[in-house]
Amino acid sequence: MIETFLLRCQQRINRLLMQQLSYTMDVPERLQRAMSYVVLNGGKRIRPALIYAAAEALNLGWHKLDSVACAIELIHAYSLVHDDLPAMDNDDFRRGQLTCHKAFDEATAILVGDALQSMAFEVISRDEFLPAEQRIQLIQILAKAAGAAGMVGGQAMDLAATNRQLSLTELCTIHEFKTGALLKACIEFPLALCHDKRPVEMALLGYAQAMGLAFQIKDDLLDYAQAIEKQDNQEPSYALLVNYSQTEQKLHELYQRALNELQFFGQEADYLRGLAEFIIKRTQ
Amino acid sequence: MIETFLLRCQQRINRLLMQQLSYTMDVPERLQRAMSYVVLNGGKRIRPALIYAAAEALNLGWHKLDSVACAIELIHAYSLVHDDLPAMDNDDFRRGQLTCHKAFDEATAILVGDALQSMAFEVISRDEFLPAEQRIQLIQILAKAAGAAGMVGGQAMDLAATNRQLSLTELCTIHEFKTGALLKACIEFPLALCHDKRPVEMALLGYAQAMGLAFQIKDDLLDYAQAIEKQDNQEPSYALLVNYSQTEQKLHELYQRALNELQFFGQEADYLRGLAEFIIKRTQ
Repeated sequence: MIETFLLRCQQRINRLLMQQLSYTMDVPERLQRAMSYVVLNGGKRIRPALIYAAAEALNLGWHKLDSVACAIELIHAYSLVHDDLPAMDNDDFRRGQLTCHKAFDEATAILVGDALQSMAFEVISRDEFLPAEQRIQLIQILAKAAGAAGMVGGQAMDLAATNRQLSLTELCTIHEFKTGALLKACIEFPLALCHDKRPVEMALLGYAQAMGLAFQIKDDLLDYAQAIEKQDNQEPSYALLVNYSQTEQKLHELYQRALNELQFFGQEADYLRGLAEFIIKRTQ
Repeated sequence: MIETFLLRCQQRINRLLMQQLSYTMDVPERLQRAMSYVVLNGGKRIRPALIYAAAEALNLGWHKLDSVACAIELIHAYSLVHDDLPAMDNDDFRRGQLTCHKAFDEATAILVGDALQSMAFEVISRDEFLPAEQRIQLIQILAKAAGAAGMVGGQAMDLAATNRQLSLTELCTIHEFKTGALLKACIEFPLALCHDKRPVEMALLGYAQAMGLAFQIKDDLLDYAQAIEKQDNQEPSYALLVNYSQTEQKLHELYQRALNELQFFGQEADYLRGLAEFIIKRTQ
């Protein structure tokens, strides 16, 4: 049952994040409170789940992936905080809660994001379960996925695309950077810890790419009804560029592609299969 | 001549930063341009100079410190970009140039800062002159100095102190985190690469602490005239809390303390001595 697996991942990562956030001595109280507010917010923890599912497929102990699972959630959390700022998406609510700059203030929200990013790299660098050589590889993967040639680059492309007509190819490129880069990193992390990864590397990266795009398209579909209503917003979305049924079909194709990539795996990849299904069928 | 040394550091670091910024394939053009704009802006490069001066004192090759010298400037640059944002200090100019959010836009400025922070960690993680073990130590030092228990923590304290009367102790604590943490890291980096650092560690860290505080007090003194004019601003400063001549005296004491810490070094610490003098005597 993928739901049981997801719950197990959520509980594990929430416990780990709580530990990390309580380590932060010397941190001003309000900053600390704001950091906890945005990190421990009941997120779905899809990214850590993807990491642990790939660890299962590669027969790696979960404890080796704990620090990157924390790090990826810290990066994801920081990106949401900065994304919600008035100068960016200007959102007042996220998951029914006030966004950080509304619950605290804008300056604090900027600093919270900045501090969470530093913390992500610090957590991996201090992981004593892994030799230094592996920690460095994980940090390289994270820095590239999070930075100007990854997630932040995608956000910059998104920004440049506001109020402009996009082609489907352009939209997919934005998705690939903005959302896909971090999701791909979730698969690259466990791969980096494998001794003989070549036979499975292409398959798992293919899975990651298909799922990354599927994830964002599903998000777009969930926003579809709203997107139609507020045409003035002009937020580019897959469902606005092609029609609804074509989008659903594309989603199904991506799901099939993800499953095909996993065909040479046995039941050790069942969590990856389950997550793929969960991602395209979720209702929120 | 400390000026010759500073010039040599500036030229070296500017060349290295330019190389790093040109590596960034896959980066959207406008983001890339904004990153270069804020990094290659004619800064004094005091932090890299401090790193190389400490390398001299410890008899380490400069090439081993190149990646941290880049990283510290990337972190410094990102912090200035976010600091200048309307929600923070709301500055339109820096060193006579438009600030990033004025030259580009606010959203881009947020993303530029975020991308530069990722890049700082990436640069160290990819440094092939150093074994993985040392790269990890350097990343740990940087993450702590930059994050919630360092620079960002100091900015949060500064924020909390606006429009409130501060004691001299509180003000020094803010300085220690906001400016001191990165300056201390400049000394910690070369120390981390030393095999037998114990005999000199305390001395160099004592030097770093004295110079960190002196650096910020000198900044305050340079702002003094302006600070008196716009009392409404309420930006806390050392010179506003005690009087001018007392502040100058404190600065001289810190300079003496820094020199005393270096008393068991020979001429290999002359650059550190020269930088201390430069920092307290500079006119901008």
